[in-house]
Amino acid sequence: MSNLPNIEHSIAIPYQLRVLFTENAFDSRNLLFSNLIRSGSNQGASRVIFYIDEGVAAAQPQLARNIASYCAVHGETLDLRGIHLLPAGEAIKNETDYLKGIYAEIEAQKICRHSYIVAIGGGALLDTVGFAAATAHRGIRLVRFPSTTLGQGDAGVGVKNGFNFRGKKNFVGAFAPPFAVVNDFSLLDTLPEKHLRNGYIEAIKVALIRDRDFFEWIEANAKALAAFDTAAMREIIHRSAQHHVAHIATSGDPFETGSVRPLDFGHWAAHKLEQLSGFRISHGEAVAIGIALDTIYSERMGLLDPHSAQRILDLIRKLGFETYAPELELENDLGQNATLAGLEEFREHLGGELTITLLSAIGKRLEIHEMDTKTILQSISDLRLPVSIELGR
Amino acid sequence: MSNLPNIEHSIAIPYQLRVLFTENAFDSRNLLFSNLIRSGSNQGASRVIFYIDEGVAAAQPQLARNIASYCAVHGETLDLRGIHLLPAGEAIKNETDYLKGIYAEIEAQKICRHSYIVAIGGGALLDTVGFAAATAHRGIRLVRFPSTTLGQGDAGVGVKNGFNFRGKKNFVGAFAPPFAVVNDFSLLDTLPEKHLRNGYIEAIKVALIRDRDFFEWIEANAKALAAFDTAAMREIIHRSAQHHVAHIATSGDPFETGSVRPLDFGHWAAHKLEQLSGFRISHGEAVAIGIALDTIYSERMGLLDPHSAQRILDLIRKLGFETYAPELELENDLGQNATLAGLEEFREHLGGELTITLLSAIGKRLEIHEMDTKTILQSISDLRLPVSIELGR
Repeated sequence: MSNLPNIEHSIAIPYQLRVLFTENAFDSRNLLFSNLIRSGSNQGASRVIFYIDEGVAAAQPQLARNIASYCAVHGETLDLRGIHLLPAGEAIKNETDYLKGIYAEIEAQKICRHSYIVAIGGGALLDTVGFAAATAHRGIRLVRFPSTTLGQGDAGVGVKNGFNFRGKKNFVGAFAPPFAVVNDFSLLDTLPEKHLRNGYIEAIKVALIRDRDFFEWIEANAKALAAFDTAAMREIIHRSAQHHVAHIATSGDPFETGSVRPLDFGHWAAHKLEQLSGFRISHGEAVAIGIALDTIYSERMGLLDPHSAQRILDLIRKLGFETYAPELELENDLGQNATLAGLEEFREHLGGELTITLLSAIGKRLEIHEMDTKTILQSISDLRLPVSIELGR
Repeated sequence: MSNLPNIEHSIAIPYQLRVLFTENAFDSRNLLFSNLIRSGSNQGASRVIFYIDEGVAAAQPQLARNIASYCAVHGETLDLRGIHLLPAGEAIKNETDYLKGIYAEIEAQKICRHSYIVAIGGGALLDTVGFAAATAHRGIRLVRFPSTTLGQGDAGVGVKNGFNFRGKKNFVGAFAPPFAVVNDFSLLDTLPEKHLRNGYIEAIKVALIRDRDFFEWIEANAKALAAFDTAAMREIIHRSAQHHVAHIATSGDPFETGSVRPLDFGHWAAHKLEQLSGFRISHGEAVAIGIALDTIYSERMGLLDPHSAQRILDLIRKLGFETYAPELELENDLGQNATLAGLEEFREHLGGELTITLLSAIGKRLEIHEMDTKTILQSISDLRLPVSIELGR
């Protein structure tokens, strides 16, 4: 129709994924943060604005003060433009007022693409501040300080952010690698045990799909982990984060343009359970149940041997997780099991074909494109009545 | 402090920049669009949702009908999920209701990451629909059909989108290469002359900073272009788009993480003029004035020879553009020239150091990091009183 030739160019956008480990990042003798900011700047002090989770600020009342004096001591590198608190929890991802408040501060403080936004907190805060940072001026540098074991080992070290739309979790969001992630172990000192435990389940997940040795390390250290031993906890976070970042970097599809999200083992049911429970069940708790469910399903479908399935369930329980919740058996208006709708919702969010990760062995994943409803329901029953798989149901 | 090693990985995200040229894309015998969608899909028909500028729909009343029957004829490839109109003009970038409406349709129609959103219209529509597509489900495939010469040759073939926040143009946005851009020349058939002309100025801009031969081609074809001759218009759009895309692909920084935006020659003043005029002055008109201003400034600073400066001004005027607007001389509350504030705003949006592109010759750009206020004001005076530069002011 038109004889003008098409224009085609391939481009590739480079990013550096970086996770740094420290303690007491804002002790003024700790140069990690100031060196990090300096590494990204050509000249003078960089503008920095902080957002802290109210839960973290309440548990660590000296934190904001420490940040202020840290920035004063390192004034040649850091031009502090504000320290703000945001409520903990999912609510800030629903209310655009918080998002707009962050945009307004960015504008008022003349935070530019070469400035830094530092987000210290749980998943909801990292997501909301991360989305604001990714979209204001089409992207401001973000430094994440995840304040939970789950954040430090898994979600907080990834490349995504998210914001809710009309109750749909993470309906809106962006792929936006942060400038850096700083895992400050001191942030975990005041974390309630329930939240400390939540990080373990994503470590088990990544071990199950990638690394049998890591799984066996977790088994061998289950007692220390269940008692929240400091050294064991730090090691499981570090290994989990290593796996998570390596997976993003080497999967060939960090921004998930294809249909595969192998890091989501156990997550189709988990997302649905969180929602069905009105978020009574936390993400970590829901993933524990989701992993247990897909482990039994893998075994029932003849993909995974019964002994391995039993080991997985035993380890999850040994670390203090429940593997069943009554929400698994809620029914919808038509009298059908409501959890099953999670499959279609997972497909939709993924786009294209449904792809579910299952296990063929500990440390070895396998992808399938449909699930058998009857076997899912039987697997749920198995979780309700936890008799030994190995000894027969 | 912590003896656990840092985690570092480099990643690179690949994108294909693609601009296709056609006429009557939705004539059912034209296979370009259906082949394009098929090229991105593994199986079955892909969900497609259309957003059309009301201005385009009014000027081409058969368009929506043609799209509907095109999708019916090519039903094995296209699963049409809706054709929606959006008002033309900047208003839709201010009002989050339009953005939310697009999100709601995406949700209702189960548009997923493997589906397509097609945006047909001017810059504001491409920006708003583009931002929605870039952020819903963290990125849905976008096909842009720019409906103006400016869109087809410049802004519409780039990798950005934008949304306004509290009156600040493009304060929010993302870098998000579209799946493809289709330049359908038939969309220009009904465009008013003022809008046809606007595309010429970005062609002059890109010629000035990259390609002397192209500048001389425009000079040689100025008469045909001023008369909106079809063949000349198509060629200037094609060459302009080629330059624009090549520049993005080869500049080394397509997502503008550094301080350089060489494609923005003449734009610091243009953005400010649009704003000062309450958008009475269109983007193309403002860029014509901005280019004229920075051309004279380049000459006054001894960077560009007077003969070249005169040729540039002559060409801009020959194509029908004004090179002066009274808004250039508005004063702020302190009695200072208001246009000058555009420099600081440009620096802020860019981040980091101010970087302004000037000319050292036709086809050759040069970057500077500060501008002399007095010389800017003299250059504005020169524009008010257009005496020949070559013959002395």
